[in-house]
Amino acid sequence: MHAVVISEPGGPEVLRWTEVDDPVAGPDEVLVDVVASAVNRADLLQRQGRYDPPPGAPPYPGLECSGRITALGSSVTGWSVGDEVCALLPGGGYAERVAVHAGSLLPIPAGVSLEEAAALPEVACTVWSNVVDVARLRAGETLLVHGGASGIGTFAIQYATALGATVYATARASKHEGIAALGATPIDYENADFAAEVRADVILDIMGASYLARNLKALRTGGRLVIIGLQGGTKAEINLGQLLAKRATVAGTTLRARPIEDKARIVAGVRQQVWPLIEAGLIRPIVDRRFPMRDAAEAHRVVADSGHIGKVLLTT
Amino acid sequence: MHAVVISEPGGPEVLRWTEVDDPVAGPDEVLVDVVASAVNRADLLQRQGRYDPPPGAPPYPGLECSGRITALGSSVTGWSVGDEVCALLPGGGYAERVAVHAGSLLPIPAGVSLEEAAALPEVACTVWSNVVDVARLRAGETLLVHGGASGIGTFAIQYATALGATVYATARASKHEGIAALGATPIDYENADFAAEVRADVILDIMGASYLARNLKALRTGGRLVIIGLQGGTKAEINLGQLLAKRATVAGTTLRARPIEDKARIVAGVRQQVWPLIEAGLIRPIVDRRFPMRDAAEAHRVVADSGHIGKVLLTT
Repeated sequence: MHAVVISEPGGPEVLRWTEVDDPVAGPDEVLVDVVASAVNRADLLQRQGRYDPPPGAPPYPGLECSGRITALGSSVTGWSVGDEVCALLPGGGYAERVAVHAGSLLPIPAGVSLEEAAALPEVACTVWSNVVDVARLRAGETLLVHGGASGIGTFAIQYATALGATVYATARASKHEGIAALGATPIDYENADFAAEVRADVILDIMGASYLARNLKALRTGGRLVIIGLQGGTKAEINLGQLLAKRATVAGTTLRARPIEDKARIVAGVRQQVWPLIEAGLIRPIVDRRFPMRDAAEAHRVVADSGHIGKVLLTT
Repeated sequence: MHAVVISEPGGPEVLRWTEVDDPVAGPDEVLVDVVASAVNRADLLQRQGRYDPPPGAPPYPGLECSGRITALGSSVTGWSVGDEVCALLPGGGYAERVAVHAGSLLPIPAGVSLEEAAALPEVACTVWSNVVDVARLRAGETLLVHGGASGIGTFAIQYATALGATVYATARASKHEGIAALGATPIDYENADFAAEVRADVILDIMGASYLARNLKALRTGGRLVIIGLQGGTKAEINLGQLLAKRATVAGTTLRARPIEDKARIVAGVRQQVWPLIEAGLIRPIVDRRFPMRDAAEAHRVVADSGHIGKVLLTT
């Protein structure tokens, strides 16, 4: 098969569409012929040599895919050859074929094309695991999403709106129309202080250190700040007096490094609680554009420029 | 009636046993003739003028009591005049009589004397709300308790042990025998670095800033740090990279400032999940010594010296 190989750590140009060995499915895995994958910001870090795949994962980037099952490991039940699926991956999605743990497979939601479904697993699992499983957002509460126009942001806006929450989202002014259409009140983070404008029960943050003080200020009593990215640095001063006075929680999470059983629990939660909302039309995959997988370098440039809204797909 | 009045902010000597107006029960309250109250460290802060009672609370110290119901507000059901009870209070326990919201009442657990029961409400509610409700400690996990010989510490050790957790507790060496008897492995914080000795799933912390880095180091993957006191300061540097890598949570909480409905939920949880463990003999109130309530100043000196293990009671 072919896969996108990182020839050496570096810029987009190090991504090479190369002939490589086919994957082999273990007893708990299935083989999937990939129809599409999607670009995540973590792929850019991996390409730069700053985010190595976890042990046992394929060396190629790609944290999600959609496609068709072509073979089943000896212990796999509940899935058949020919099934159309999408999947959460620890890597290896930028390839014509991938071995996937059965616990990471999801069916294609009714109303979503097989190709578009590649835009769903990473954002659905990230948003559900953080907004519901960790932060326990409830109807009537307020969610603030940073990076509201990202894949995760656009999904979080739709999901929290469907849950009955009020949603605010930070984004560049040029993207406000797009995210307002999804249900959020946009905040122009380049020209306004979000902590002066919003009080939130839950904040989904991708900035880390540079936003910590303002995020704590913006939290309501009983609020939960969930940090899933550190684009604004790692070390910050925290005022624990404020934390106690607000009875607030700060959680840091990652999805990729979780044990396979934990991922399977999250995937099961997504299938049960999120997939019905997609099938009801309350959440749709937001795809900005598509590239042939061999042009992954160009797709990485687009994501690095942050001019897009939602996901950038790679198709085989 | 008589109550312990804080004549002005200051040392123990400002506490005066004084004749004051009797409390009046509102429709949702009962009147309790107090048999005993207990000293909490927060009372010392209140005496110093550093921790004002919340709006509507009596001005006298005392966050818990035991006694007998002498009158019922018009809306109160489920309790009768003459019932022996203990109660979580927003203040006012250092008095002969106190008005108590019905949602803050607990029956006296079988096997515990009415007087000793005054040692239970604050520690039971604090430990249950933080260790179970916030941190979700599970059987087989490891809990680290700082201040293991305190009222909260001695209760947390027994409760977590009863839940099937492994418990480590920091304390002065002179108190190690006492807390080991309750089920904890003691750590001499004056001569050892706890973060080099323990890896914990849950940490119950009373120090705040001075322990933050070591607490994060001591947390296991998926660990939960719950900060309920700030004896080591409020402002600290936090390494969010470490937080994400461990998928850890830092929560700050207080009990006293919670809304009355929230306290009622906690009291109900304690009655349902903690009281049976007391009645089964798995947890007992740890009372270091008793003082007549008029000698509250002496009791405050004992607690300030930190030479005691468990609770110091005040009896009417």
